[in-house]
Amino acid sequence: MNLSKYQHRIQQLQSMMSQNGVDFFLIQSPANRFYLSGFELFDPQCNESSGYLIISKDKTYLLTDPRYQDTAKQHSSINEIFIYSADKFKKINEFLKKIGVKSLAFEPQWMKFDFFQSLSREFDLKPVQNLVESLRMIKDAEEIRLIEKSCQLNHHVFRLLEKIIEPGISETEVAWRAEKYFREHGASGLSFSTIVAAGKNAAQPHAIPRNRPIPEETPLLIDMGCRLDDYCSDQTRTFWVGSTPTRKFMEVKDLVMEAQNIAIMEIGPGMPIREAYFLARSFFEKHKVHEHFTHALGHGIGLETHEPPSVGPRTTGTFKAGMIISVEPGLYYPDWGGVRWEYMVLITDNGARIL
Amino acid sequence: MNLSKYQHRIQQLQSMMSQNGVDFFLIQSPANRFYLSGFELFDPQCNESSGYLIISKDKTYLLTDPRYQDTAKQHSSINEIFIYSADKFKKINEFLKKIGVKSLAFEPQWMKFDFFQSLSREFDLKPVQNLVESLRMIKDAEEIRLIEKSCQLNHHVFRLLEKIIEPGISETEVAWRAEKYFREHGASGLSFSTIVAAGKNAAQPHAIPRNRPIPEETPLLIDMGCRLDDYCSDQTRTFWVGSTPTRKFMEVKDLVMEAQNIAIMEIGPGMPIREAYFLARSFFEKHKVHEHFTHALGHGIGLETHEPPSVGPRTTGTFKAGMIISVEPGLYYPDWGGVRWEYMVLITDNGARIL
Repeated sequence: MNLSKYQHRIQQLQSMMSQNGVDFFLIQSPANRFYLSGFELFDPQCNESSGYLIISKDKTYLLTDPRYQDTAKQHSSINEIFIYSADKFKKINEFLKKIGVKSLAFEPQWMKFDFFQSLSREFDLKPVQNLVESLRMIKDAEEIRLIEKSCQLNHHVFRLLEKIIEPGISETEVAWRAEKYFREHGASGLSFSTIVAAGKNAAQPHAIPRNRPIPEETPLLIDMGCRLDDYCSDQTRTFWVGSTPTRKFMEVKDLVMEAQNIAIMEIGPGMPIREAYFLARSFFEKHKVHEHFTHALGHGIGLETHEPPSVGPRTTGTFKAGMIISVEPGLYYPDWGGVRWEYMVLITDNGARIL
Repeated sequence: MNLSKYQHRIQQLQSMMSQNGVDFFLIQSPANRFYLSGFELFDPQCNESSGYLIISKDKTYLLTDPRYQDTAKQHSSINEIFIYSADKFKKINEFLKKIGVKSLAFEPQWMKFDFFQSLSREFDLKPVQNLVESLRMIKDAEEIRLIEKSCQLNHHVFRLLEKIIEPGISETEVAWRAEKYFREHGASGLSFSTIVAAGKNAAQPHAIPRNRPIPEETPLLIDMGCRLDDYCSDQTRTFWVGSTPTRKFMEVKDLVMEAQNIAIMEIGPGMPIREAYFLARSFFEKHKVHEHFTHALGHGIGLETHEPPSVGPRTTGTFKAGMIISVEPGLYYPDWGGVRWEYMVLITDNGARIL
């Protein structure tokens, strides 16, 4: 039998469920739902679901509201569709009883208290973390191709931006140009709000673009990504606007890029993930700038911009071929600005490749 | 003392907390957090918070991570900032103990199971629903002005779209033009993904634009909104593409607009909210088309596109001056298409005004 990619993923999950003694698994994460079934990558709002999957030993149910009835029918990996409208939690309880649920595993980082409370009256609930995420961490060949395509568009838009960045243009205008370029080249949207941060604003890892002219002779940090064919990209560059970069800028940029290079050179399958973080961190310590490195080294990326694994000091687990992570060291000086450089990196059979 | 709008809102909440016997209230909803403090209207992802507010009898605390440290300091209604990084839940527990929390109220529709589990080890937790939402339902003069401005831009973009809609243009191209118009006229983004649905696609209340030419002599439904100065707009129109609308289209459109008109004429302060739904519904029943009206009549709108009150058959409560809702009846025929017409309406002291 020729399984669709969704059926294949569901089978992998069912085998993990069996190993964990789970008969029924409730999927609430939009990205997990989409990964397993192709149904709706997004919820309309964070507190408004497009629908839930129930995975049993041999069936996939979709629970959704009437708005999605027709869309739901288009997904062949879904065996049965249940439509709720008003009294949603009560109706879901009744449906679950009907299909024989007694104990139900769920995703603790996605389960809301009100839903939990309703379900707990009827079922034995069991939090099970990162089962689907552990599948999603290893990208298959098609996913790698799509993420690489998304990343290539990111490279292209950086080249287009370089031509329009000049003193006097505003941060918001640069951000909007980036978004237009992404969209006009096929992206469905941004994978996160673009960061365009000049001068001291670049010292905030989470800077919001301002509508004022970028002055001459200033560092400019741009962190941006798009969503192309459902998959995210995420890259950061730090430019110098003007003709004479300061010595400080060149030094900080060299340190950041060297730390990045050291980590990427070493990353490969079997290496503990947190070691990548400590490679960059130790390099910064050697140069006595580690207190200006205030975040993790990177994160997994795929259907979500931020997905497991985080590449930080407390991450457990090792790198495996097929993982795609960001490697993005940065150094931040509140009174001056900051430099961050970010590549997306694929773990290969014997090392890592920059996308 | 001259209170800022945030301090004023926090005082209103504190007085409701006192009536409900609540000493400390944890705010997780991004829109509620922004409404009370001005800090971050958005979380970076649905499972990644920008920060939480704790409101006590006389203080406002912000709990956030290092990325937001500088942003947080800019908000004067926040009395104390607590920064967590790794071990977030543990650190939050320690902080709450330090400030004397014993029992803690929370928003059940926003509390995730993993956070709940961690907090429940230390504190007496109490779900309290829609306290801040009940404040947000009644818009103040500045909010009304901003929502009206957002809605005016929506009107303007519909006028621009009318000029470019013609047979042969694709649904995705119309959606992208709408987005560009919004952004180039000052909107920070869309308030939701634009729906552009021709022919049968219009029968899906939640249609996704397709990249294929819109044929001649077809109904075309456009549901769109923007976010301008933080506030959302949301309007739907259904056009006829071509020169000779069919009799069916004209009849369905007349029924939808008449149902909308009947509801809006009656809406005013003191009227039970669900009555507005039943006015439209009864009109459709009289014309034997009610089975094609498959959703609620409307919803509150403000900092979120969908916020209380829902205007549906089970809504409790009455209309109050200062509420802003959408009124959007629709009739859907899977084999033919659909018509929806949506206005945003402000409840005034003696009736309702279309924005």
